[in-house]
Amino acid sequence: MASIFTKIINGEIPCYKIAEDENFIAFLDINPMAKGHTLVVPKIEEDYIFDLPNDILSQMMPFAQKVAAQIKEVTACKRVAIAVLGMEVPHAHMHLIPINTEADVDFKKAKLQLTPEEFSALTAQLTLIK
Amino acid sequence: MASIFTKIINGEIPCYKIAEDENFIAFLDINPMAKGHTLVVPKIEEDYIFDLPNDILSQMMPFAQKVAAQIKEVTACKRVAIAVLGMEVPHAHMHLIPINTEADVDFKKAKLQLTPEEFSALTAQLTLIK
Repeated sequence: MASIFTKIINGEIPCYKIAEDENFIAFLDINPMAKGHTLVVPKIEEDYIFDLPNDILSQMMPFAQKVAAQIKEVTACKRVAIAVLGMEVPHAHMHLIPINTEADVDFKKAKLQLTPEEFSALTAQLTLIK
Repeated sequence: MASIFTKIINGEIPCYKIAEDENFIAFLDINPMAKGHTLVVPKIEEDYIFDLPNDILSQMMPFAQKVAAQIKEVTACKRVAIAVLGMEVPHAHMHLIPINTEADVDFKKAKLQLTPEEFSALTAQLTLIK
């Protein structure tokens, strides 16, 4: 069965998309740690990130770099952190999280609750800067 | 002034090195979250990971992939997680952390205390599998 991310990639499930190319898609995490928290997902449905083919792995950080630059500019964070855990959705994905301190990366803390309007506004801001 | 990681790369400060190539070095984190917790560090001294040149960024995940395969085999973890926070040492570095649950990635929890003998034994195990 297709993963939820494959369904997003195929347009069967909506997302707040901020970037896409031949091999990757980037969209807002709907349970964000901070405004601008984004997932970078390879279009190939591979469960474990280090099982991705070499050519996809090698393009992942340069793709994330462009997305992170947008996030940093829009959110005015100090850094965009990277996290890949991958125990929940069986489709490799990289979290890009705007942070100001190391403590801002905390998968246990309560997630932000944003309205659809807030997500849409954020998407528009993040997508505008190219 | 050279960063602590540059001093490690230059051999001025010792480390438990498990892999190295032209552009990267990998060594055990001395304050590990789990046995096998490793840092992947580009030899270029750049503070923020997304300021690295494109060719280095593109080689980072394939290098990490080889190191992660060693960690997974030796520690028998379910996954090797990735984290890049980068607010402390001003030299970009990627944490590779063996995990069995998502909760295993927690920068706030108390770190493991390993003896030099334990670090050395782990280094030997991780370096043997190539």
